[in-house]
Amino acid sequence: MLAEIITIGDELLIGQVIDTNSAWMAGQLNMIGIKVHQITSISDNRDHILTTLAEASARVQLILITGGLGPTKDDITKHTLCDYFNTSLVFSDLAYKNVEKLFAARGFAVSELNRQQAMVPANCRVISNPNGTAPGMWFEKDGCIYVSMPGVPFEMKAIMEQEIIPQLLDKLNKVIIHRTILTEGVGESHLAAEIEPWEDSLPSFIKLAYLPQPGMVRLRLTAYGTNRDELQQAVSKAEKELYPYAGKYIFGYDDDTMESVTGQLLRKKRATLSTAESCTGGNIAQLITSIAGSSDYFKGSIVAYSNEIKEQFVGVPHQVLADFGAVSEQTVKAMAEGIRNRFSTDYAIAVSGIAGPGGGTAEKPVGTTWIAVATPSGTVALKFLFGDHRGRNIRKASVAALNMLRKTLTE
Amino acid sequence: MLAEIITIGDELLIGQVIDTNSAWMAGQLNMIGIKVHQITSISDNRDHILTTLAEASARVQLILITGGLGPTKDDITKHTLCDYFNTSLVFSDLAYKNVEKLFAARGFAVSELNRQQAMVPANCRVISNPNGTAPGMWFEKDGCIYVSMPGVPFEMKAIMEQEIIPQLLDKLNKVIIHRTILTEGVGESHLAAEIEPWEDSLPSFIKLAYLPQPGMVRLRLTAYGTNRDELQQAVSKAEKELYPYAGKYIFGYDDDTMESVTGQLLRKKRATLSTAESCTGGNIAQLITSIAGSSDYFKGSIVAYSNEIKEQFVGVPHQVLADFGAVSEQTVKAMAEGIRNRFSTDYAIAVSGIAGPGGGTAEKPVGTTWIAVATPSGTVALKFLFGDHRGRNIRKASVAALNMLRKTLTE
Repeated sequence: MLAEIITIGDELLIGQVIDTNSAWMAGQLNMIGIKVHQITSISDNRDHILTTLAEASARVQLILITGGLGPTKDDITKHTLCDYFNTSLVFSDLAYKNVEKLFAARGFAVSELNRQQAMVPANCRVISNPNGTAPGMWFEKDGCIYVSMPGVPFEMKAIMEQEIIPQLLDKLNKVIIHRTILTEGVGESHLAAEIEPWEDSLPSFIKLAYLPQPGMVRLRLTAYGTNRDELQQAVSKAEKELYPYAGKYIFGYDDDTMESVTGQLLRKKRATLSTAESCTGGNIAQLITSIAGSSDYFKGSIVAYSNEIKEQFVGVPHQVLADFGAVSEQTVKAMAEGIRNRFSTDYAIAVSGIAGPGGGTAEKPVGTTWIAVATPSGTVALKFLFGDHRGRNIRKASVAALNMLRKTLTE
Repeated sequence: MLAEIITIGDELLIGQVIDTNSAWMAGQLNMIGIKVHQITSISDNRDHILTTLAEASARVQLILITGGLGPTKDDITKHTLCDYFNTSLVFSDLAYKNVEKLFAARGFAVSELNRQQAMVPANCRVISNPNGTAPGMWFEKDGCIYVSMPGVPFEMKAIMEQEIIPQLLDKLNKVIIHRTILTEGVGESHLAAEIEPWEDSLPSFIKLAYLPQPGMVRLRLTAYGTNRDELQQAVSKAEKELYPYAGKYIFGYDDDTMESVTGQLLRKKRATLSTAESCTGGNIAQLITSIAGSSDYFKGSIVAYSNEIKEQFVGVPHQVLADFGAVSEQTVKAMAEGIRNRFSTDYAIAVSGIAGPGGGTAEKPVGTTWIAVATPSGTVALKFLFGDHRGRNIRKASVAALNMLRKTLTE
């Protein structure tokens, strides 16, 4: 099956909005074995919509359309679809019940303008939109499927995930399963080299995608076939077989993040945490506290940007700073132990480095970063050499520091 | 002049890469009065490229093409353009000098594969690419301009900004001027209502765009016409006339950020800063230290997530916390004064609030946030009520806190 995607909206053609929908939809279709032939963005213009639909239907068997379904006058997709299919709008009870439900949840009555959202072309099958008033619409004509969806990304995604992809899989008599494995402490190319034998051994119906982010690489397994149990077993087997190659890098699965995984481990141990940050400037504290409920295990941080603060408030001895400098094993260990004692926590993280762009020397170039973790049974410190980009250095140091703590907690 | 954008690359059609280029290019064209009729994404397929070019050239007078210019076999745009224009590749000295320069800067010799990057269709005018080996190419045929550029966004953007847009303006005999005005402390719709008389008085050749971000709204003025001096004067006049309406919200211009503006003010005053953060969890320190050189004025922060830390390390009296709670005017003032004294800084910021999703009460709902600024001449505190989204509350509180400091510094 070959597909095209058509996104409709003046905002796309004046550059006000980036079309993120198309790539997401293309990725979804690609994963179920449907190839996307072309993506076309056009304005809210009747003739242009009609021509584009006709041209696409001559080339492919599936057309996904987003946009132009709002209740205001400039949104003309629904009327144009009526012209295209030579039909007219009818009232849909199913679509109206959804509008009513959404308004009731917000405590409002349905306005006339929004009642219009339940009017749909007579030849369509209404697809529920759990997050908005504009329903999805499924048409079939002359061997081509047309699906029209709202352009609001989270509305479109819910409709695609909950309705369209399952229905297409049904039509194709196929199922699909995803599993994402999160790794840290290894770059994409090194990871790829290390797991190559495993990757080569994957059955052809499991696809692997590398999704790199600063400081981590996500591996996404997608299994596509006809039998859900068999696919599930194959994915579990692949996941298990990956472990000998990459187990030391794996820190989580699917929607996990480094801060959520670390937080869960602290919570399980009923342990508390504090941080002393120099070059990361509060970024680690900020990551930890981005998790709701983190106050249960996180007591606080000192961002010790000046040596004075490192001495007086974190408790780094003056002589250590004088002898070894702020970016050193001795200082970062003293920071971790200092904050752990002062804030009376079970664990502590400390980071001191040269984020750049200034401040580097031949001996300690930009990117040099010391990270320490203090625990009830001692303190460990590691040296990292990141790159020369300030923002990325800060992000990488933060992830590496949380990962050091995570490893300590799982030992 | 009417335009189309064609982006070429298999990665776009399998959803691996979001096409951010098209929206950016459309925005650039829109600002110089060129309307974009259609955006089309297609794969690296010869026949599909040829058809798409022919169809587009029948509709518009300008076609911008990105992608497919890499040195590897799957990149076929250049050869396909030769077929389209019925010509062949020739060696370009200009393009080769650029390749040499780029390799010399990295200390490498030019490989044969990269020498090929200097081969261009005989009928094109080479456009310099300062950031990559693939040159831009300008073609004209039968009243239509074709511009082919690499798909790497920062390469394409430099070519567009430095070469294509100026050359199109020349062709159109036009000039363009931008000015962005940054506001804080007012939502988009309220700001729009307050500045409506000013907006209505803008001359027709100045366009206004609202660009909202969490906690701030950027106003972008774009003047388009034939005389640079006149446009410049008109924009300066508009900027001046905005002041009576929105002066109290304006904190910067163009590439400024709240943290850069605040940092510049501190630097100018040779003043130092510390922060005590509860609900923002280190985000303010992180913003401040994202600016290179911030160690000149920022001494550090205490992220006081627990009351214990607020008492022992920030110096909030036990009785204040017991009587008024952590989220109160009294506590946040004591935090600001406490950190200012302990860290011996001229200024200090403190924030305490309920970021959510839990922790809200009828009296203090989620989003309730107290912010204090301590100065050499006293301490002020303000109460804010943000929304119910944790991440946005943290970002809004951070921007609002920096803005309170900024106002104090400019008084």
